[in-house]
Amino acid sequence: MSRWQPDAADRLKRAAVELFAEQGFAATTVPEITARAGLTTRTFFRHFADKREVLFGGPEIPALAARMIAEAPASLDPATLVFGGLQTVAETRFEGHREELRALRAIIRSDAGLRERDQRKRADLSEAIRAGFVGRGVPATTAALLGEVTVTMLYVALDEWLDVDDDRTLFEVIMATLGTLQATLAGFPLAGARGAGVSVREA
Amino acid sequence: MSRWQPDAADRLKRAAVELFAEQGFAATTVPEITARAGLTTRTFFRHFADKREVLFGGPEIPALAARMIAEAPASLDPATLVFGGLQTVAETRFEGHREELRALRAIIRSDAGLRERDQRKRADLSEAIRAGFVGRGVPATTAALLGEVTVTMLYVALDEWLDVDDDRTLFEVIMATLGTLQATLAGFPLAGARGAGVSVREA
Repeated sequence: MSRWQPDAADRLKRAAVELFAEQGFAATTVPEITARAGLTTRTFFRHFADKREVLFGGPEIPALAARMIAEAPASLDPATLVFGGLQTVAETRFEGHREELRALRAIIRSDAGLRERDQRKRADLSEAIRAGFVGRGVPATTAALLGEVTVTMLYVALDEWLDVDDDRTLFEVIMATLGTLQATLAGFPLAGARGAGVSVREA
Repeated sequence: MSRWQPDAADRLKRAAVELFAEQGFAATTVPEITARAGLTTRTFFRHFADKREVLFGGPEIPALAARMIAEAPASLDPATLVFGGLQTVAETRFEGHREELRALRAIIRSDAGLRERDQRKRADLSEAIRAGFVGRGVPATTAALLGEVTVTMLYVALDEWLDVDDDRTLFEVIMATLGTLQATLAGFPLAGARGAGVSVREA
């Protein structure tokens, strides 16, 4: 969309984050956002369905994940795809924007409607990954777990990366989160094959 | 609430699920639900904040999880708590209600607003578990992952249990899902300790 204004969506998003941070999400109108960005309301609604959507960047990350999974060579295993995808998203969408993302997170946390929209985006990404792996012949439950675990690593790592002030990259924090996940699961009972007898370890 | 009508919430929920299945969620009114249940609208709103909420049973599962984690002996490790909690919830809330839960899931899937509410309930449960483990001194990232992994196992297993027609209990499907999760993570790169160098396996 709008090849003649390649940066319109970015300008609108930056203006929206500034205004929401200054005066609150509920108190800010779309015309205020477009005035700050030097663009028209018509341009706003060409890019975003509503005021919430300007914060979330539309369906692009789920669509990007779906495309990456569909177009990857058949020889690539799910782990390589998941971590290649996480690395790409971390480096091209988040790295270098830590301050903006902190402001964005504070705005989302301030409003129940924005928190619900954020959860829906997260569910959309998990679903895109699940459907992509089902399309590659991965069994249904494994595909669902790949979707869930991938978004869990991304969201938990993103929170930690925004909470701390060190010089690790987001992808380094994602890999550390994977390490913590592996250590956590190492304490779980060994469930073995599907349908096998299991017992919960006693403390 | 309403000690004098211990089954009012259950009767309202059953009437609502029947009516939503018969005529759709959007087309059903609260007075129709209360008429079917033989109760008053006032009783409905004493139990549920709105028409959506009647499907989700209020805050009880997150509150139950928070209480179980807070009151457990200090000697119990997180894995025992997680699987003890999953077993309790599976056996007391879901087992024996497979047909009703299938109808409930079909209704939730039919309406975008209900899907968002369902995701919020899921996020509330993850958050209750996270906060509970932080309260027991578990490090922040591990606590967040325990919340996420627990709800992932519950929700992915619930979907599989409702999709198939075998005689496994929900808790058996949860343990099989844990087995699939462990097998899936076994294919991931070994991330090792926090901040250690990592490399994504090539296919």
